[in-house]
Amino acid sequence: MAQIRHALNTKRADDFAAWYQEVISAAEMAEESGVRGCMVIRPWGYGIWERMQRLLDDRIKATGHSNAYFPIFIPLSNFEREAEHVEGFAKEMAVVTHHRLIAGPEGGLIPDPEAKLEEPLVVRPTSETIIGDAMARWVQSWRDLPLKLNQWANVVRWEMRTRMFLRTSEFLWQEGHTAHADEAEAREHTLTMLEVYRAFAEEDLSLPVIAGEKPENERFPGAVETWSIEAMMQDGKALQAGTSHYLGTNFAHASGIKYQNREGGESLCHTTSWGVSTRMVGGVIMTHGDDDGLRLPPKIAPQQVVILPMLRDKPEDDALVEYCEALRATLAAQFAVGEPIRVLLDTRPGKAAAKRWDWVRKGAPIIVEVGGRDMENGVVSLLRRDRLWDETTGKPDFQTPTRVEAGQSIPAILGDMQAAIFSEAQERREANITRGVTEFAEVEKFFAASRYPGWVEVQWSKPTGAELEQVVERLKALKLTMRNVPLGSRPADGVCIFTGKPAIERVLLAKAY
Amino acid sequence: MAQIRHALNTKRADDFAAWYQEVISAAEMAEESGVRGCMVIRPWGYGIWERMQRLLDDRIKATGHSNAYFPIFIPLSNFEREAEHVEGFAKEMAVVTHHRLIAGPEGGLIPDPEAKLEEPLVVRPTSETIIGDAMARWVQSWRDLPLKLNQWANVVRWEMRTRMFLRTSEFLWQEGHTAHADEAEAREHTLTMLEVYRAFAEEDLSLPVIAGEKPENERFPGAVETWSIEAMMQDGKALQAGTSHYLGTNFAHASGIKYQNREGGESLCHTTSWGVSTRMVGGVIMTHGDDDGLRLPPKIAPQQVVILPMLRDKPEDDALVEYCEALRATLAAQFAVGEPIRVLLDTRPGKAAAKRWDWVRKGAPIIVEVGGRDMENGVVSLLRRDRLWDETTGKPDFQTPTRVEAGQSIPAILGDMQAAIFSEAQERREANITRGVTEFAEVEKFFAASRYPGWVEVQWSKPTGAELEQVVERLKALKLTMRNVPLGSRPADGVCIFTGKPAIERVLLAKAY
Repeated sequence: MAQIRHALNTKRADDFAAWYQEVISAAEMAEESGVRGCMVIRPWGYGIWERMQRLLDDRIKATGHSNAYFPIFIPLSNFEREAEHVEGFAKEMAVVTHHRLIAGPEGGLIPDPEAKLEEPLVVRPTSETIIGDAMARWVQSWRDLPLKLNQWANVVRWEMRTRMFLRTSEFLWQEGHTAHADEAEAREHTLTMLEVYRAFAEEDLSLPVIAGEKPENERFPGAVETWSIEAMMQDGKALQAGTSHYLGTNFAHASGIKYQNREGGESLCHTTSWGVSTRMVGGVIMTHGDDDGLRLPPKIAPQQVVILPMLRDKPEDDALVEYCEALRATLAAQFAVGEPIRVLLDTRPGKAAAKRWDWVRKGAPIIVEVGGRDMENGVVSLLRRDRLWDETTGKPDFQTPTRVEAGQSIPAILGDMQAAIFSEAQERREANITRGVTEFAEVEKFFAASRYPGWVEVQWSKPTGAELEQVVERLKALKLTMRNVPLGSRPADGVCIFTGKPAIERVLLAKAY
Repeated sequence: MAQIRHALNTKRADDFAAWYQEVISAAEMAEESGVRGCMVIRPWGYGIWERMQRLLDDRIKATGHSNAYFPIFIPLSNFEREAEHVEGFAKEMAVVTHHRLIAGPEGGLIPDPEAKLEEPLVVRPTSETIIGDAMARWVQSWRDLPLKLNQWANVVRWEMRTRMFLRTSEFLWQEGHTAHADEAEAREHTLTMLEVYRAFAEEDLSLPVIAGEKPENERFPGAVETWSIEAMMQDGKALQAGTSHYLGTNFAHASGIKYQNREGGESLCHTTSWGVSTRMVGGVIMTHGDDDGLRLPPKIAPQQVVILPMLRDKPEDDALVEYCEALRATLAAQFAVGEPIRVLLDTRPGKAAAKRWDWVRKGAPIIVEVGGRDMENGVVSLLRRDRLWDETTGKPDFQTPTRVEAGQSIPAILGDMQAAIFSEAQERREANITRGVTEFAEVEKFFAASRYPGWVEVQWSKPTGAELEQVVERLKALKLTMRNVPLGSRPADGVCIFTGKPAIERVLLAKAY
């Protein structure tokens, strides 16, 4: 087996965190902005987010929600009103105190002391309270229910330690908020949205996830139930990729979301909220990336096929571009994974080999190179990003179908890649979940045994109060958290690994982002 | 001719400003948020904006731009660096000075004095400087050019007097920013984007606009040329609906956007910027709305066809819904104005007549009512929003095609409405532009003669400096501004209405939003 020279300097196995940063930089996905904690999302990274938005938005609309837009500023008093809410929330927020800049006494600009706001405004860390206010205005009668809203927006949480996509002061997300007449419907809707997230993650992002309920200590403050989807990164850590909360009547009570019921009396609504963010882009990188850069499932690739004519700044170039353009047009007229194929004929100046490796690092699913000889032979050189190397030769594993064959087979190859990249991640995850651990000492041993250890499923008695706190502390000492109690996991049949009492359910333990 | 009882309380002819507010409220498009100067965009209003975004985004991508995302916060020093830029800009901006809230000494929350930012951050009023910084990093060589970026984002300009959609402290927009190797290409691109806006306004929003160059005094600060599209509202005022700027090397110089040219030397880029905002929603209301509410061109209607079964809470309802569902499915499987038809079967509780008028006020292009008798006769009752009334009877002008006919004819009706609503607005505009005015006194008379006077085209000598200032002041005294010098207007052949010198070009005068 030949030595392979990978496209990145850092290998996942050597330094996962440095590898992650290198992928982001080499794939031109994002970069530091110079503004504390905020990143610039570059066109390729934003293109991936746009694809995610489009696909998730379709799913959110298909489940009966409408998008709306609420102010970026939230009056300070809204946070005071929701004292409990704030308690659980980091109070690290961007606070607007002035509405004017003027020239300062020592030159430069300063906030105008004359333009101090009577009440400071907070840049939204989430829109719970302001959407709650609107719901209270819009809901009058049972006829107005359910009210199903969603917002795509930027939010700000002042973060001291940031990491691109995973934790930034400003990030992009969607936040869904719904109000229902009764508990059963609201609880059901919480799970409907969890399922929307699961399907989105698995079918669109090829990201295998485990959907389940968070333990009490991991609930969103004010929530009655918090559910999540959890994905395993290639370093074995968990990434919470989306959450769905059943909020009971807690938020309805705080915001006054009431309705006249069919009997003419007044009832509080039951509400839900749920969100996913640009964090999911980080999850895609850490699940699908390899030592050559990003790999993208076709559904979220801004370009699915990149055609690279090997131009030489000579008159023959025209014929080569024409030859490539025919393939581009053939592909653009076809569908793959449910949409018209996104194909780019890349004729920018630059060396073909350099351009090939740029597209490899960016994770374009299929790269088609075409040189003069290919054209003479009526073929193309096709590279699948998920099967990049010929392990025998240590060289890129080019296939050379005829141009006509390429035009016919590429739609199916894209469908195949969408599934293959999912299976690969799912098999890796399953291989890295250890079940049947019955002693806490084994847990310790498991997480000490390897650098990228994966997850452990244990049985527990679901304690509350001080007993739960003890569990959380013991896990914290190992830098572990309980991720969730998977939906549909086998019933408990043993004793609690923490308390020794009869177990109630199974819960996943992991290090997490 | 019978008396018509319109769906709104206020008539355009009586109080245009109050009528505008009533449309927004009655169509459930937006409302005050309780946060100073910020509105809540409700689902129907946001749905229209989403349609606009989708259509314009497609056009922006088709002209070779990529979307990206830049931080919402801009360091104060960026504004200092661009002193000239700031001078022309309102300095009314939201300034973030603290990054934490804590409990205050008298209860409640206050910005933590310990968490004062060393350098205040400004909530972006536009992203010129921060995108300029990124361009300076990304552009190295002529091979990197042109660089064509676009951003969809929220921006904030602290406004003292706000009006929904037209002027709000926070608004939504897209801002395009491009860098080019040379002047000719940048100038051409400025006009390409102006044409994109014209086509978007006229073909997608059915909004007739006049594209032209703004006079010097109306230029974006720092721009070499500013172009606009101007639309006439039904009160005769102009609305600047989009602008495109050629910035020369001014912004490249300020941000250091340089490239190594083909000869190996260093050159400054020529840049452009261009934007449209949620203001355009206001333009749609004031162009197409009538005394019954909003009217929407089908391309931007969130729902193009609304089917209303006249339910009576009786067992027969099921058959009626089934009858309607067949039409819904027939329509949803077809295309109109280039996309699958958006059709809603509205089975929410409520009286059919009340629901009809809700949809009339919202401007849904086609409303199809179906009662028990319609079903028996195999027909439906179809109402076109652009031909709402039978002037003879003073009643809604229902057509009663068979259900099969409706399924066949509706796609063409939608296409017809898209064009009809444009022609109607264009004819009204042309009827309200007065040309051939040669004396300033006539201008005065024209604008004093009626409440909703329209525009005047005059010839002028395009003065600069003090002479231009005088022109601006004379117009200001009449509350008038120069809108633009229309592209392709006839050459000047007279004398300047202001200076008496030989005229150079024709310019439009109007009151404006």
